[in-house]
Amino acid sequence: MSLISRIELRSPYLILVGDEKQPTFAKTGLGIVQWRRDRVVGQLRLSPDAVDLGVPDMDVHAAASGGAGSLVIGVAPPGGAIPDAWWAVMQAAATAGLDVVSGLHTRLAGNEGLALAAEAAGVRLIDVRTPPPNLPVGSGRKRSGRRILTVGTDCAIGKKYTALALAEAFRAAGVKSTFRATGQTGIIIAGEGMPIDCVGADFIAGAAEVLSPDNEPDHWDVIEGQGSLFHPAYSGVSLGLLHGSQPDGFVLCHEAGRETVSGWPDFRLPELDEAIALHERLARRTNDAARCVGIAVNTSGLAPGEREDYLEALRRRHGVPAADPLVDGCGALVRFVRESTG
Amino acid sequence: MSLISRIELRSPYLILVGDEKQPTFAKTGLGIVQWRRDRVVGQLRLSPDAVDLGVPDMDVHAAASGGAGSLVIGVAPPGGAIPDAWWAVMQAAATAGLDVVSGLHTRLAGNEGLALAAEAAGVRLIDVRTPPPNLPVGSGRKRSGRRILTVGTDCAIGKKYTALALAEAFRAAGVKSTFRATGQTGIIIAGEGMPIDCVGADFIAGAAEVLSPDNEPDHWDVIEGQGSLFHPAYSGVSLGLLHGSQPDGFVLCHEAGRETVSGWPDFRLPELDEAIALHERLARRTNDAARCVGIAVNTSGLAPGEREDYLEALRRRHGVPAADPLVDGCGALVRFVRESTG
Repeated sequence: MSLISRIELRSPYLILVGDEKQPTFAKTGLGIVQWRRDRVVGQLRLSPDAVDLGVPDMDVHAAASGGAGSLVIGVAPPGGAIPDAWWAVMQAAATAGLDVVSGLHTRLAGNEGLALAAEAAGVRLIDVRTPPPNLPVGSGRKRSGRRILTVGTDCAIGKKYTALALAEAFRAAGVKSTFRATGQTGIIIAGEGMPIDCVGADFIAGAAEVLSPDNEPDHWDVIEGQGSLFHPAYSGVSLGLLHGSQPDGFVLCHEAGRETVSGWPDFRLPELDEAIALHERLARRTNDAARCVGIAVNTSGLAPGEREDYLEALRRRHGVPAADPLVDGCGALVRFVRESTG
Repeated sequence: MSLISRIELRSPYLILVGDEKQPTFAKTGLGIVQWRRDRVVGQLRLSPDAVDLGVPDMDVHAAASGGAGSLVIGVAPPGGAIPDAWWAVMQAAATAGLDVVSGLHTRLAGNEGLALAAEAAGVRLIDVRTPPPNLPVGSGRKRSGRRILTVGTDCAIGKKYTALALAEAFRAAGVKSTFRATGQTGIIIAGEGMPIDCVGADFIAGAAEVLSPDNEPDHWDVIEGQGSLFHPAYSGVSLGLLHGSQPDGFVLCHEAGRETVSGWPDFRLPELDEAIALHERLARRTNDAARCVGIAVNTSGLAPGEREDYLEALRRRHGVPAADPLVDGCGALVRFVRESTG
C-alpha cells in the first residue's frame, strides 16, 4: 500500500478562523471542535469579534511550541478569495513547522511565498480536494469487515452528519467503528479520507475501495455518502461510491418537507420507497446482502407536534428505524444494525 | 460558450504508424481510415513492413505541404513507452506547423524538446485523455434535438463501433446525425469529443451535456457509451453519462456468449431484460421518454447457423431490432427509431 493511500492529516490542529463573524461560514472549524475536540490545540482569530470555536486562542508560534501538527483553514473566505492576511499566517505557520491544510478551491501551492516557505521548512501544503495519486480502478473484490454507507434523496441532506453521529453511536455502544470521510469537511474533521467527487471518473469505485480497506470482521466502517442517485449532476459519484463501498447496510438521509432537488427545482425528489428500492437493487451488484438499515431525517422543518408522528409513520412503512440524528441520536440505528446483521 | 468546449482536432491528419506490424495495435489508425477517410492525408511508417493503413505514405514535410493539420499517433506503442524515434517525428511535425495528437497515457508536453518545438511553432500538443477546462456541473435542462446513447452489458462490447455505424446509417437514410465521441479512439476518429472517463467525478453529467448541446429538432446525436451500469469499477461513469446525455433512446450492446465481466470474472453479466429495465428506469430521471430502441450484438462467437436464430429470439423477446452492426449494419435500427419516435 505504499503508493496508494488516503489523505492523512497531522494533528493536533491550530484552526484559522480569520475575522469571520458568521458561524454559518465557520462550519468546518465548528465541526472539527464538535466531533474531534481531541484533535484541536487552539484557534487563531484575526479579530476579537470573530467566531469563537470555544478553544484556546493562540498564535502560530504558541501552537508550534504546543506540538501542533497542522494549521487548518476552518472558515470559508469572504467572497471566495483568500485574504492577504491569511496567506501571511499560513506562511508563518509553514515556517514554524506546521503543515497547512485547506478544503477551499484555491490551490495553496499556487501562492509562491507559501510554497517556498513550505519547501524550506519541509512541511506539506495539503489541499484536501486533491485526490491522492495512483488510485486503482475498482476490483469488486469482497473485503473483510462490515460497512454502512449514508445515502440521500438529495445533496446537503445530512449524509456527513449522520455518518459522524452513527460512527460515534457505534463506539458508544462498544462496537468498533470508523467514520470514513469522502468530502473536504469530513476529511478535515476526521484527519483522513478520500475526496471522492474530485477523483477521475474512472476511479470512483476504486477510490472508495481504498478508503475503506479490509478490516476486522466485527469492525464497522461508516462511510460518508456523496450526491444522490437521483441527482441530475452528481448521480455518477453516488453510484461509483455505492459499488466501491460494498455496504452491508445503507442509511437513507432525507429532509422532511423538501420536495425538489436543492438548486435543481425542476427535479422532484424520489419517494422514499423508490429510493430504498433503487439503492438496494444497485448496491447488490457488489454486496448481495445490502439493505436499508435506517432512515435519517432532518425534521427541522416540522412543527414539534408533527415530528414523532412523521418518524413513526416511516418506521411502520419501511420496517427500519427512523430518527433525526441531531435530535434523537443514532442509538436506535445501532441497535437495529446489531440485531439484524448478526 | 467561449470558455466551455469539447476537444476539437485540426484535420486532415498524418497518421503515425511507427514500425508497428500488428493490426491489433493499430486500431486507432485503422479506425480513422475506416470511418473518416476524408480526414486523412497520409500515413507515416518508420519501417517498410509496418501496418499499411491503405493511404499514401508521406513524411512530415510532404504532409505539411499538403495541408495537414495534425500528426496523430495511430498505434499503441510497444510496451507502453513512446520510442525515441517517435519523439523525433513529433518534434519535426510540430516544427513543420502540425498539431500533435495522442490518445496515450504519456503526456506529450512532458517531453521538453517537443514542448519547446510546439511553443516555437505555435501549434498545439493535444492529449485527448485530458478534458477541456471549465466544465460545468450538469444542469439537467432539457436540450433540443434527439439523442441515442449506446450502452452495454460490459466494457469493450461494441459501444463505439455501434455508435459510429448507427450515425452513418442515419446519414445514409437522409437523417441529420452526429457521432459524439466519449473515449480517446472515438475522439481521434471524429476529430472532436469529450474524454468522459477522465473528467472529475462531479462533472460527468455536465461534460455529457457539453458534448451533446442543443441541436435542430430533427437532428440525432449518437453518443458513444462508456463502461456499464453493471461494471464494478466503471458504473459511475455510465450513470453520469446516461443522465447527462438525456437519451431518447438507447441501444444495448452485448456479445453473444460473454457471461462474465471482462477482466472481472467474479461478476456475471446481467440478463438483457434486466439491463434494459435498469437503463430505462435510470434514464427516465432526465428524459421520461427514454426507451430501448435496439440491441447490438457481437455475434462473432456464434456458429454461422446460430446467428440469425439468436437475433430473432432477441427481437421477439424484447420487441426491438437486434442486429450485429458489423454484419448487418444499422439500417433496421434506423427504421425502428424513425417509426417509433415520430
